[in-house]
Amino acid sequence: MGDKYEQLVSHLDEFQDLEYAGAILSWDQQVNMPPGGAMARARQLSTLARLSHEMFTSDKTARLLEDAEREVDGMPYDSDEASLIRVVKEDFAERTKLPTDHVAEFTRVTAEAHEVWVHARANNDFAYFRPMLERIVDLVIQSAEFLGYADQPYDALINRYERGITTARVKEIFDGHKPRLVSLISDVTAHADRVSDAVLHQGYDVDKQRAFGLDMVKRFGYDMMRGQQSVSVHPFCTSFSRDDVRITTRFDSNWLNPALFGMMHESGHAMYEQGSSQSLEGTLLVGGTSLGVHESQSRMWENIVGRSRGFWMWAFPILQQYFPTQLEGVDAETFYKAINKVERSFIRVEADEATYNLHIMVRFELETGLVSGKIKVADVAREWNDRFESYFGVVPPDDAHGVLQDVHWSSGLLGYFPTYALGNLLSVQYYNRALQDHPSIPDEIAAGKFDTLLHWLNENIHQYGRKFTSDELTRRVTGESIQSDDYIAYLEGKFKDVYGL
Amino acid sequence: MGDKYEQLVSHLDEFQDLEYAGAILSWDQQVNMPPGGAMARARQLSTLARLSHEMFTSDKTARLLEDAEREVDGMPYDSDEASLIRVVKEDFAERTKLPTDHVAEFTRVTAEAHEVWVHARANNDFAYFRPMLERIVDLVIQSAEFLGYADQPYDALINRYERGITTARVKEIFDGHKPRLVSLISDVTAHADRVSDAVLHQGYDVDKQRAFGLDMVKRFGYDMMRGQQSVSVHPFCTSFSRDDVRITTRFDSNWLNPALFGMMHESGHAMYEQGSSQSLEGTLLVGGTSLGVHESQSRMWENIVGRSRGFWMWAFPILQQYFPTQLEGVDAETFYKAINKVERSFIRVEADEATYNLHIMVRFELETGLVSGKIKVADVAREWNDRFESYFGVVPPDDAHGVLQDVHWSSGLLGYFPTYALGNLLSVQYYNRALQDHPSIPDEIAAGKFDTLLHWLNENIHQYGRKFTSDELTRRVTGESIQSDDYIAYLEGKFKDVYGL
Repeated sequence: MGDKYEQLVSHLDEFQDLEYAGAILSWDQQVNMPPGGAMARARQLSTLARLSHEMFTSDKTARLLEDAEREVDGMPYDSDEASLIRVVKEDFAERTKLPTDHVAEFTRVTAEAHEVWVHARANNDFAYFRPMLERIVDLVIQSAEFLGYADQPYDALINRYERGITTARVKEIFDGHKPRLVSLISDVTAHADRVSDAVLHQGYDVDKQRAFGLDMVKRFGYDMMRGQQSVSVHPFCTSFSRDDVRITTRFDSNWLNPALFGMMHESGHAMYEQGSSQSLEGTLLVGGTSLGVHESQSRMWENIVGRSRGFWMWAFPILQQYFPTQLEGVDAETFYKAINKVERSFIRVEADEATYNLHIMVRFELETGLVSGKIKVADVAREWNDRFESYFGVVPPDDAHGVLQDVHWSSGLLGYFPTYALGNLLSVQYYNRALQDHPSIPDEIAAGKFDTLLHWLNENIHQYGRKFTSDELTRRVTGESIQSDDYIAYLEGKFKDVYGL
Repeated sequence: MGDKYEQLVSHLDEFQDLEYAGAILSWDQQVNMPPGGAMARARQLSTLARLSHEMFTSDKTARLLEDAEREVDGMPYDSDEASLIRVVKEDFAERTKLPTDHVAEFTRVTAEAHEVWVHARANNDFAYFRPMLERIVDLVIQSAEFLGYADQPYDALINRYERGITTARVKEIFDGHKPRLVSLISDVTAHADRVSDAVLHQGYDVDKQRAFGLDMVKRFGYDMMRGQQSVSVHPFCTSFSRDDVRITTRFDSNWLNPALFGMMHESGHAMYEQGSSQSLEGTLLVGGTSLGVHESQSRMWENIVGRSRGFWMWAFPILQQYFPTQLEGVDAETFYKAINKVERSFIRVEADEATYNLHIMVRFELETGLVSGKIKVADVAREWNDRFESYFGVVPPDDAHGVLQDVHWSSGLLGYFPTYALGNLLSVQYYNRALQDHPSIPDEIAAGKFDTLLHWLNENIHQYGRKFTSDELTRRVTGESIQSDDYIAYLEGKFKDVYGL
């Protein structure tokens, strides 16, 4: 490539290094940092955010981008070079709208907010978190105004995580499958006694949980030479290179689900990040294209694979070797049903597949309300409980099981939640397509073989990193845009079988 | 303070944040990073080093420093303001001598070298490390030339860690106490059979080792709300704020010493960092003034406290509760002697007090030889073994127990080792002074009380951070410069008693 293109790449490398440094500091904050370190860490993250924002939005970037664009003129749309210019132009247009002071302030406040949220959640004390959340919502609204939007402020926010989508389109998708979801949940929970999950609620040694979970995700294909697993309050996946992609886990010594399915989930994210083409390493094209597509990967491994009957026909005897006492006399089918029990429960990250998107719909309504000003932060705990009751028929016993449960708002990530539901839809669309190419996949899973699926994902999705938008990628892979029919059909088929309806 | 001074502080805060970010990435590299992450991490560290170096050595710093200096004119020598200007001027004069490209290259190469050294050490393969060490020695010599020196290149290197000292002065101090050291070791090892350390070499559960070690260092006064402990190949202490000071530990499941005394040692460093005055937080004055003074703190807690008879008269019954089987029928006096067995052993970090400074003298000779060009990297493994034999009368069985044992050279830290020996001398000088002020300290230690000593250190040493140079501080505290008489007298008194001579 030409000289200017190389200069642009080298300039962006430095920016990317600063972004990665920030990511490492954030990971450390959630995994290792002692409480006393919070103030200094907020300052450090703010400085890094300021410097990286200044570097990226500088005149130098604009100039190099313009010059490099001329050099790559005529190169194929999906080439590394043309894709980098295209994606960086979009990032640049978005980032330059945000003033540096706003970015630094946003980073500092949300970094400080983390410990406040942890404390509030642990002490079930929303009032302690409330002033912080008010500042954050104000900052988020400012972000939306800076970024601009066609229809409503929330468009600007959701577009940061799922480029190209609108609030109206999300609402349409949600409204489009909500009735069948509610109906399915109703049918299933009318026969709640047909499935017991008692087997999952026993004493399970945390070290053994970890060992079994790691065994499974390594077999999926999570490369631990380029990966790492730690403990945190809220499980997540983060990467500092395609060759250093980490997951975190929350363990419950009396419940198998959080760690087991959390590890499968995060490994799905991690394998996506690890699967970027080697040629993209260090560039702004490495990683996942949108949070929705990212979530499609985590949910595919967690649910379509990890909560399938076939998988447990193979994996259950292994799990029994880890926990012979707890699982004595239990059969694989009973276990399979237990992990697929549908419940009107309170915690999103531990929700079953059937109710999961309803949890998201509650958050979507609250967030659009907060951002439009129709809901005040002072009222959001009550609004949460009211809406939760209308969707689920039950009221959270306390705010730790309600409005305080998720880390996202403390991090300023409003607009993020809808991508979880979109990811669920995409996971089934992509998987169905993989099945068309390789009908043997379910049989392979039932034999503990996962490489056909992983290689299909590598080939069709992972390798491209951020080259294509979510919609471009979905059309390339499946021939159509995101839709909810496949997902609902999958849920209905699975849960009517599990509950014998 | 005036406007310019505040601008300087704010500018330096950003620099300090970048330095801390680099420290966090380095800590993570040694504690958590998967092997695959090495290349990206080297790149990230290099970018941070380049940016922080550019920021610190910029015209802006020079201008603000000059303006701020006028504003603080007339303030007391030991005020925060006058001290900051004084120390930053010295840092600035030193740093501006190093070209940015050299700093970035140095950082990148040493970051890459870490994994190479880990691999070479694990596989006992010096040849694998050699090309890397050659590049590093070249870079170190370049650094010395850039920095300048009066007498010899090594002066420039050692001065980075112990400002104001020279190679000649170090040699004089070393030569001054070497004969009495050699004589003491000779006397003691002639009666080697009087002390057995068999009790230390048994199976000791690592989790329990960790629990006991943390119990002890917390009692010393290491504040875990502002601290954290992890595992690494080479134990170290690092800080990202006075309120986030971490130690790492290496465990041996069949030997009590490495983790136990390692934790005491690193906690001494950590308490020094945590003890900086609150008013210095975030400024360039926070932390320790020199590596020698730093080491005086780690060695005081590890040895003068942690290897004292009084301490174990109190602590041994607690240790017995952790390890009732291993320590059944052992008495405190036997244990005290075991941890003070003098041996001609190979590994510096696990050496007893009597032989420790000899380990340093070997390294001092090799480093001055490497930097002057008298010793080639190709010969350094052999040179190590030859010298070791002449000092200790034994030859390391392999390079993992010889030239590959320490992390320092892979990090480019030539000139660093002598500060360990200087720290030993200072530890006794400071402790003797504390005893003059508080003769009750030994009795308190024997009752498990450590706050009189810690508060004395806080008051006389820690709070000042980097305000005074090592020599200024030592004169303020003890009324004299560094000397070896106190140290040798301490060693002779202790080991003649332990060995009944």
